[in-house]
Amino acid sequence: MFDLTLIGIGTGNPNHLTYQGARAIRTADLILIPRKGENKADLVGLREEIITQVTDTPPLIAYFDIPKRRVDDGYLRGVDDWHDAIALRWQKAISAHPQARNVALLIWGDPSLYDSSLRIAARLTPKPQTQVIPGITALQALTAAHAIPINDLGAPYVVTTGRRIRDEGWPPDATTAAVMLDGECAFQNLEMQDYDIWWGAYVGMKEELLISGPLADVSVQILETRARARTDHGWIMDIYLLKKRVI
Amino acid sequence: MFDLTLIGIGTGNPNHLTYQGARAIRTADLILIPRKGENKADLVGLREEIITQVTDTPPLIAYFDIPKRRVDDGYLRGVDDWHDAIALRWQKAISAHPQARNVALLIWGDPSLYDSSLRIAARLTPKPQTQVIPGITALQALTAAHAIPINDLGAPYVVTTGRRIRDEGWPPDATTAAVMLDGECAFQNLEMQDYDIWWGAYVGMKEELLISGPLADVSVQILETRARARTDHGWIMDIYLLKKRVI
Ligand SMILES: C[S@@+](CC[C@H](N)C(=O)[O-])C[C@H]1O[C@@H](n2cnc3c(N)ncnc32)[C@H](O)[C@@H]1O
Ligand SMILES: C[S@@+](CC[C@H](N)C(=O)[O-])C[C@H]1O[C@@H](n2cnc3c(N)ncnc32)[C@H](O)[C@@H]1O
Repeated sequence: MFDLTLIGIGTGNPNHLTYQGARAIRTADLILIPRKGENKADLVGLREEIITQVTDTPPLIAYFDIPKRRVDDGYLRGVDDWHDAIALRWQKAISAHPQARNVALLIWGDPSLYDSSLRIAARLTPKPQTQVIPGITALQALTAAHAIPINDLGAPYVVTTGRRIRDEGWPPDATTAAVMLDGECAFQNLEMQDYDIWWGAYVGMKEELLISGPLADVSVQILETRARARTDHGWIMDIYLLKKRVI
Repeated sequence: MFDLTLIGIGTGNPNHLTYQGARAIRTADLILIPRKGENKADLVGLREEIITQVTDTPPLIAYFDIPKRRVDDGYLRGVDDWHDAIALRWQKAISAHPQARNVALLIWGDPSLYDSSLRIAARLTPKPQTQVIPGITALQALTAAHAIPINDLGAPYVVTTGRRIRDEGWPPDATTAAVMLDGECAFQNLEMQDYDIWWGAYVGMKEELLISGPLADVSVQILETRARARTDHGWIMDIYLLKKRVI
């Protein structure tokens, strides 16, 4: 029997860590760290750096490999099986340390936002008591880097994915949308002259890239910058905010 | 000439502060702290506690009173004048310390989210170089407290205000909406049997209250709990997440 703590660590800047997150790292008995394999941003190093930054007596660390995701079987079905497989890896890594009472994971950004750890945790048997510690999201890192508010005065906004923009277009009635998980610059599918964009890659990290302006003017620059950076680093994470002009 | 740093401090839990925020507090020459007057959550004490928690040699502190907002003149017009008036208070507080190069404000939650500091900063003359440091939002504190993801798998969500829900109803096509700035439990205007709610007041603070369940079942409990807490404390801040059931 163990408790699980999902610790949001922010999005690449080790100083995104909160005092609450630091405390949870110090009181953990065991921390699980995922490995993704070659040529990918597995970011093992960053997680290790965050741990040693807050404690001289780090807890036990157990590494696990993230299994490959099947993509031939429909998006949601594939994800479901994948979560089952990850839960098995967690269970195995944890069971090697039966004395650990407080098990923790360092979650990129915030555990509530486009992250599956809560869904994976719910698959463990017995289901552990799970505590969540919020962390700075990529969206906040983006708006901070551009020094912009996300919402217009008293106005709503939408957070969505590249897939949705590509498949469904602009969210109905929205004037502001933040787009995450976009591997293919889905903004190209929009009527570009109607939008302004604030784009960022590796936000908060030393590799940070920022571009903003009327979408029609800067889209090519974003496409080229993104392609080059991805080749140079072998991986990329990017996010953007779009505002539709009111005519 | 001074630089301005807007430091997100999280939403009531002093341990929401990030290492980046702590560093910015330490390197500030002058910190402006707002006062709201009697019977209100001016939260001066929390801001002072956060400062002394991270440094033994606190920077200069200048207090300023937040002016009253005119409400007779239409919502946006009233807000616009109000921001002008606050900018004048900032300017006055800062000009009393002409030697201060790094001026900072401790912003509730994250400076990008339903916060006017960036708009107020843009009114200062000369306009200072402005840096933003992200902080944990009330929405993240809410989802962490309930240990829930905000989005369904790969799905979008909307962040909106009580006023919008009241005036415009449920956002078109949305399945998930987070509601902030709601003084009057706007969820009462929805077809309650279609929704689940995760509600929280004073989230992250010692007064924290959490209620969740089918909206039709828990709405009265939320209304009563909210009214009582508001009377007891003299103020309240609450936030909630709604999910519409897919039928
Ligand atoms: C699986 S989601 C995880 C989000 C994370 N839980 C958060 O709170 O930001 C990954 C997506 O987050 C965004 N992202 C995460 N870190 C980022 C960074 N440092 N710079 C730009 N985008 C980032 C990208 O859109 C990426 O596709
Ligand atoms: C002016 S907005 C500021 C939001 C802030 N910038 C943030 O990032 O959370 C104030 C609204 O935030 C929400 N809020 C802020 N702190 C809260 C808390 N501790 N508990 C519940 N709601 C909170 C409420 O909906 C409140 O009406």
